[in-house]
Amino acid sequence: MNVLWIQAHPETRSLNGFLAEAGQRALRDEGHEVEVSDLYAMGWNPVVDAAAYAHDPARRFQVADAAKQAHAEGTVSADIQAEQEKIDRADTIVVQFPLWWFGMPAILKGWFDRVWHQGYAYGHRGPNGEWIGYGDGFLAGKRALAVVTTGGPAWFYGERGIHGAIDELLFPLQHGMLFYGGAEVLPPVLVTGADRFTPADGDRAAGDLRARLLAIPVTEPVPYRAQNSGDYDENLVLRPDVAPGSTGLGVHVRTGVRPLPPVVPPVPAGTACAAGHPRTR
Amino acid sequence: MNVLWIQAHPETRSLNGFLAEAGQRALRDEGHEVEVSDLYAMGWNPVVDAAAYAHDPARRFQVADAAKQAHAEGTVSADIQAEQEKIDRADTIVVQFPLWWFGMPAILKGWFDRVWHQGYAYGHRGPNGEWIGYGDGFLAGKRALAVVTTGGPAWFYGERGIHGAIDELLFPLQHGMLFYGGAEVLPPVLVTGADRFTPADGDRAAGDLRARLLAIPVTEPVPYRAQNSGDYDENLVLRPDVAPGSTGLGVHVRTGVRPLPPVVPPVPAGTACAAGHPRTR
Repeated sequence: MNVLWIQAHPETRSLNGFLAEAGQRALRDEGHEVEVSDLYAMGWNPVVDAAAYAHDPARRFQVADAAKQAHAEGTVSADIQAEQEKIDRADTIVVQFPLWWFGMPAILKGWFDRVWHQGYAYGHRGPNGEWIGYGDGFLAGKRALAVVTTGGPAWFYGERGIHGAIDELLFPLQHGMLFYGGAEVLPPVLVTGADRFTPADGDRAAGDLRARLLAIPVTEPVPYRAQNSGDYDENLVLRPDVAPGSTGLGVHVRTGVRPLPPVVPPVPAGTACAAGHPRTR
Repeated sequence: MNVLWIQAHPETRSLNGFLAEAGQRALRDEGHEVEVSDLYAMGWNPVVDAAAYAHDPARRFQVADAAKQAHAEGTVSADIQAEQEKIDRADTIVVQFPLWWFGMPAILKGWFDRVWHQGYAYGHRGPNGEWIGYGDGFLAGKRALAVVTTGGPAWFYGERGIHGAIDELLFPLQHGMLFYGGAEVLPPVLVTGADRFTPADGDRAAGDLRARLLAIPVTEPVPYRAQNSGDYDENLVLRPDVAPGSTGLGVHVRTGVRPLPPVVPPVPAGTACAAGHPRTR
């Protein structure tokens, strides 16, 4: 594999830093290539602005249009172009982050905001004039894997846990970004309960991560429905005869209303976990 | 009302800029106080780092703990403290943004990442030692309203639309941040189809926004289930007899499996909308 590993944690001496190092070593030890975008180490600028797209600030800045034009003219800023070249070189993309307030840290969200602009990541048509997206696109032929730590225990993120089901919290990334771009999106690697990790827990998580990484080529992707599969009508609304009567994010997965295989273990008997750290750092 | 209005768009000459100005004027014209955090205008730094919490970089940076300590010692950075003072002064919070890649622009996500730290926004116990959150907390007594523009049309974000139901995409903000903090969270103001707006569309949206803003005190909040309501067990998992057999984000709303009143109109007959701009700018 040629892996692009994107990571977003401010502290290399963290669990995230430990898992990044262990995971990248596991891949390299098996002969895979790994290129790393360590956004904190790079001092990545996550804020969309006119300058990145060579836009004259005297004129109204319409982000998508300005980016498309800059892309066509080759004037997108060098930091963005460098990330796009990394994406284009890779056949596998790993996105690793701690879940902060139920989403990506801002530095990572802004990697998507800035790098995945119109002209590069969307706005393309196929041979019959159809718009491309959700199952086909600039990530076609690539596989993608999210590696996510949560401070809270797994059951907070279960299908009836108070924080919301983790597969649905990750839907914007998994479906809206990675699958939209055409990648085969694998079920995420979830490392839960990070707030109370022992060194042994970390070693076990690194072992689990290694196994998931090496299995990337043979792991079954999440079976999201493709935009041009016939499941959606001309307005991109699910046809009435597809998952009839069902609603919610899970309807966009072929096999039923639950988007992912179960990843959250049942609450161990007798466990009364205080809810002191619902946030993950 | 004493309103804190947080906005996050890089261009004041945009639809977002127009709606911000119109909405703030509508409130002031009725005698309400409006304080504004225009994150782009402020040059807000969205990236969590040790410096904001006066943390010695020689020591491992554990974000939540470092923030808690800095908060206790009064050494949190001035930009964060200023935002917290604005929150504390307000009885109403408006969060306005364009939906980018199914979430907040990074500059806004990083406002939450940095300002809503342990010690200020979470990590508190009630009089009986119980953890506080979801229905009670530092936003208790305040009302919150999200104002969100999307480039794509409403039906892309309907309950069976390809982008996913908008109420579920906004669940992290509405439930995980605002309701978690104890605010009464109102159904969001959604301005869809922004990519094809005419000036008349903008005026109509401003009128709708004005009506929603002035109705804040009398609008029914989304009936999310409170953490300490008895609906959740000691592990914060929904009790089996509550919404029995249901899963998905909607189970955390008292009235059923759909979190919000319908906000997406049906697709107009004969409308075949090309999916050219699934992203919102």
